[in-house]
Amino acid sequence: MELATIRTPNGSTAAAVRRGDEWMGLAAADLSELLARPDWSWEAVTALAAPVGSGIPVDEAELGLPLPTPGKVVCCGLNYADHILEMGRDLPEYPTLFAKFADTLTGPTDDVAVPTQAQAAVDWEAELAVVVGSELRRADEEEARAAIAGYMLANDISMRDWQKRTLQWFQGKAFDGTTPIGPVLVTADSIDPDDGIEITCEVNGVRRQHGSTKTLVFSPARLLAYISQFTALRAGDVVLTGTPGGVGTGMQPPQYLSDGDAVVVRAEGLGQLVNTIRFN
Amino acid sequence: MELATIRTPNGSTAAAVRRGDEWMGLAAADLSELLARPDWSWEAVTALAAPVGSGIPVDEAELGLPLPTPGKVVCCGLNYADHILEMGRDLPEYPTLFAKFADTLTGPTDDVAVPTQAQAAVDWEAELAVVVGSELRRADEEEARAAIAGYMLANDISMRDWQKRTLQWFQGKAFDGTTPIGPVLVTADSIDPDDGIEITCEVNGVRRQHGSTKTLVFSPARLLAYISQFTALRAGDVVLTGTPGGVGTGMQPPQYLSDGDAVVVRAEGLGQLVNTIRFN
Repeated sequence: MELATIRTPNGSTAAAVRRGDEWMGLAAADLSELLARPDWSWEAVTALAAPVGSGIPVDEAELGLPLPTPGKVVCCGLNYADHILEMGRDLPEYPTLFAKFADTLTGPTDDVAVPTQAQAAVDWEAELAVVVGSELRRADEEEARAAIAGYMLANDISMRDWQKRTLQWFQGKAFDGTTPIGPVLVTADSIDPDDGIEITCEVNGVRRQHGSTKTLVFSPARLLAYISQFTALRAGDVVLTGTPGGVGTGMQPPQYLSDGDAVVVRAEGLGQLVNTIRFN
Repeated sequence: MELATIRTPNGSTAAAVRRGDEWMGLAAADLSELLARPDWSWEAVTALAAPVGSGIPVDEAELGLPLPTPGKVVCCGLNYADHILEMGRDLPEYPTLFAKFADTLTGPTDDVAVPTQAQAAVDWEAELAVVVGSELRRADEEEARAAIAGYMLANDISMRDWQKRTLQWFQGKAFDGTTPIGPVLVTADSIDPDDGIEITCEVNGVRRQHGSTKTLVFSPARLLAYISQFTALRAGDVVLTGTPGGVGTGMQPPQYLSDGDAVVVRAEGLGQLVNTIRFN
């Protein structure tokens, strides 16, 4: 099943579920609101959907930021073996984690506005994002797997100069509106990262990254279980699972994004994020 | 002026303003709710207060977590010259920043529960916390100073083993309910950290930390201005300004907190946080 947050002609948004070639509206403004309902379930979602034939054709719908108000966004760095080696590091015993804010996120086709003071070293990071479907506290891996609502793509666009100003990456990873996620939430019954999802990143049509989620050091379920040892995860929270090799900062010489560059993150079964960099 | 979130006998909470020896209730459940109102102002707060004589005597009131739902909690590490030297580092050009979640916070007299897997290296960090009073985006220092609602204390209790597992400190700083803040919000017209606020930390009655906010490398206004270059700050957001020298991990040999230890963070004009460590 695929869920999305659709932009409506009047400027508002609506949660929707895909039925064939149509998006059927759900009685919630977006997927954050839908997942926050204490009574939500996939069965309830299906029952809520507008009748087939009354939806918006898939090729006419504009998809917005699927989860505008997650309570927590936790990101894992250094999780693909090849990217870890490219950054000159050893394979880790523990996941390297940092946080983003809901404000950091943006929609799957939105422009990514980069302010003047952060335009020197703008880099791409294609990632698999995991969406939490039910509360997790000190969970084991099996419980964590059962609590995954589904998956989407993310582009953890990073201001490498700000990231490297201090020991903590956070400030280079938390510019408002610079992490596209989406385009849709594909439920966990339809796709399994443990089987290997091929994720790619293209910049102006040139492939820069390519990795399989099969090579993740910490699987989605293992990451969620680990995070839940120190903080509760709840429905609608988002966990970014790290990026494969091929980022600009790892190139010789390093290569970064410029005004007008088009970045496309893509995976079979998850669709694509298509975002243009705008220096302003 | 002093504001607080008071625990009421029926188990709920209420925002309150101090008038002499009484807390006068305000029409908001807590200070997060109060500061989130688009129409809030100090004048409005004063007008909202219940009439003098109908309040709760200060020595009978139980103060709860003042800001239970901040949108953002940003923390600065390495901001007191003496602590930076104690950790073996140079004075920084840029503030070292990381994020916490609202869930990380707890009240000024609450027990701090530490789960089994994080009891090996529990450390104290007395800090000045700044509370944002109005929205800031790419602000300069003067605008940032004008947007400060006020100040309170914080104890950034840190699980040093988790903090040092990877390059990113976040996971050792984000255990739910381990950062006491409060006890009250002292408004910016009553106290000025640039003049020097002496902050201390005592563990079981023994003084471990002592520092003056006069020695902050990055002042509260400078920190807020810096953060606002990458993310919007809004009323009710909290910025922790770093800790002075004297933390347990800097002692020879390192010394950490045990079950039952009482940690007191205190400053003239800001009151005190009194929290007991509970291993569970």
